[in-house]
Amino acid sequence: MRPKIYLFGDSITEFSFDDGGWGVSLANHFSRRLDVVLRGYSGYNTRWALKVLDRVFPTAESGAAPPLAVSVFFGANDACLPDRRGAFQHVPLDEYKQNLHSIVSSLKDDTLGYGRAWTLVSACLKRWPKALILLITPPPVDEDARIRHPYVENPSGLSERTNEAVGCFAKACVKTAGECGIPVVDLWTRMQQYPDWRKAYLSDGLHLSQEGNKVVFEEVLKKLNEGGLSLENLEVDLPLFSDIDPGDPFKAFQQ
Amino acid sequence: MRPKIYLFGDSITEFSFDDGGWGVSLANHFSRRLDVVLRGYSGYNTRWALKVLDRVFPTAESGAAPPLAVSVFFGANDACLPDRRGAFQHVPLDEYKQNLHSIVSSLKDDTLGYGRAWTLVSACLKRWPKALILLITPPPVDEDARIRHPYVENPSGLSERTNEAVGCFAKACVKTAGECGIPVVDLWTRMQQYPDWRKAYLSDGLHLSQEGNKVVFEEVLKKLNEGGLSLENLEVDLPLFSDIDPGDPFKAFQQ
Repeated sequence: MRPKIYLFGDSITEFSFDDGGWGVSLANHFSRRLDVVLRGYSGYNTRWALKVLDRVFPTAESGAAPPLAVSVFFGANDACLPDRRGAFQHVPLDEYKQNLHSIVSSLKDDTLGYGRAWTLVSACLKRWPKALILLITPPPVDEDARIRHPYVENPSGLSERTNEAVGCFAKACVKTAGECGIPVVDLWTRMQQYPDWRKAYLSDGLHLSQEGNKVVFEEVLKKLNEGGLSLENLEVDLPLFSDIDPGDPFKAFQQ
Repeated sequence: MRPKIYLFGDSITEFSFDDGGWGVSLANHFSRRLDVVLRGYSGYNTRWALKVLDRVFPTAESGAAPPLAVSVFFGANDACLPDRRGAFQHVPLDEYKQNLHSIVSSLKDDTLGYGRAWTLVSACLKRWPKALILLITPPPVDEDARIRHPYVENPSGLSERTNEAVGCFAKACVKTAGECGIPVVDLWTRMQQYPDWRKAYLSDGLHLSQEGNKVVFEEVLKKLNEGGLSLENLEVDLPLFSDIDPGDPFKAFQQ
């Protein structure tokens, strides 16, 4: 059966099957090779993600085939400021980092709540030890655009997020990846390397434009490739039309 | 876990996650409610589809959760004429009809090769008896455009398909759906109701333009809705952001 990769995150993941979205671009890139399964939950932060993780993914005991990879893309909501609109989405920086650790170890080891010592003696509880877990930092935020495009009335006239605060969450995400020994896409830094990033990459100061989606697609693809998930390495699901012999089509279907 | 629907077919299914494609439009429409899983195989006819069916879908014994629906969308390649380019894709009309019957009964009953009598005494072999199986006829063909856009050199100057022949396959598909008591989208008829169908709905005389994709999306959605698969009837996977109480966010996550 065709293998899969999960995209786990907030609205930037949930909306990634929109026209030109990074999720559907991955699905098309890996067409006939793997399924891209969206698990994006608009508005969610790492605290809520952790709360629902065992309802999002099959457990180790389910017998479900492990995915080849899982992207974990949270932080944009955790970074809402605690004294502005969206405060109830805010997660303190230390907790964000700890939550990311817990998400990663839960995906790898399925021992959420038991801690590392338990993992060592309990191999049967490992969830997906071989899956490539990829962290993605939140993208930068354009504060002016956030005020122009509020989701709900915002009489304060202040952005619910600042780019500086989001940058702290991005740095914590990068640090967590290092501590876990897993790859990370530092979107916050990558996008700001382009001077016109606000207009080019964002649609409302927070979510991605088509160009922004392209950046995420390319950066995630690079990390998947580096982790061995490339068109060359992945088997095609059933013979390609070009590999079917017009003189003896059934030959291609012999197992 | 989130339920799924499978889209099973040829290139018109395989390419349905392209920009504006009918597959990704379904995925976005049912976002957070179900997964749309592409099983499109470019160039395939029903003969080859039947040959690989048990490698495409999990068997009844696998323990995998049954899908809510499967669309079966073949015929465009079966309808290649037996005396032109693409002859090796041709399937005689009677066999096409029989193959569709076999595909439907295999998805429902998993008794491929055993016949109906066996099904009755062998409930344990039933694959997905409750899944909505939806047939889709091939779309009409624009012969002039097929000559202008050949995939491979075609010195004969004759289209490998005629719209008249495709129409016979479409009629056989509709008839099969009636015999099986399952819904069908008669795309061949539906598209030709619009006088400018050649330019509006097709990109190369065979595959779908964005407008053509929109027609397929709308017609398939209508049938899914009629079969009870609608936004109203399907559960949302985990609480929507709008249903989370800012004063007590965790309340929404209590099971």
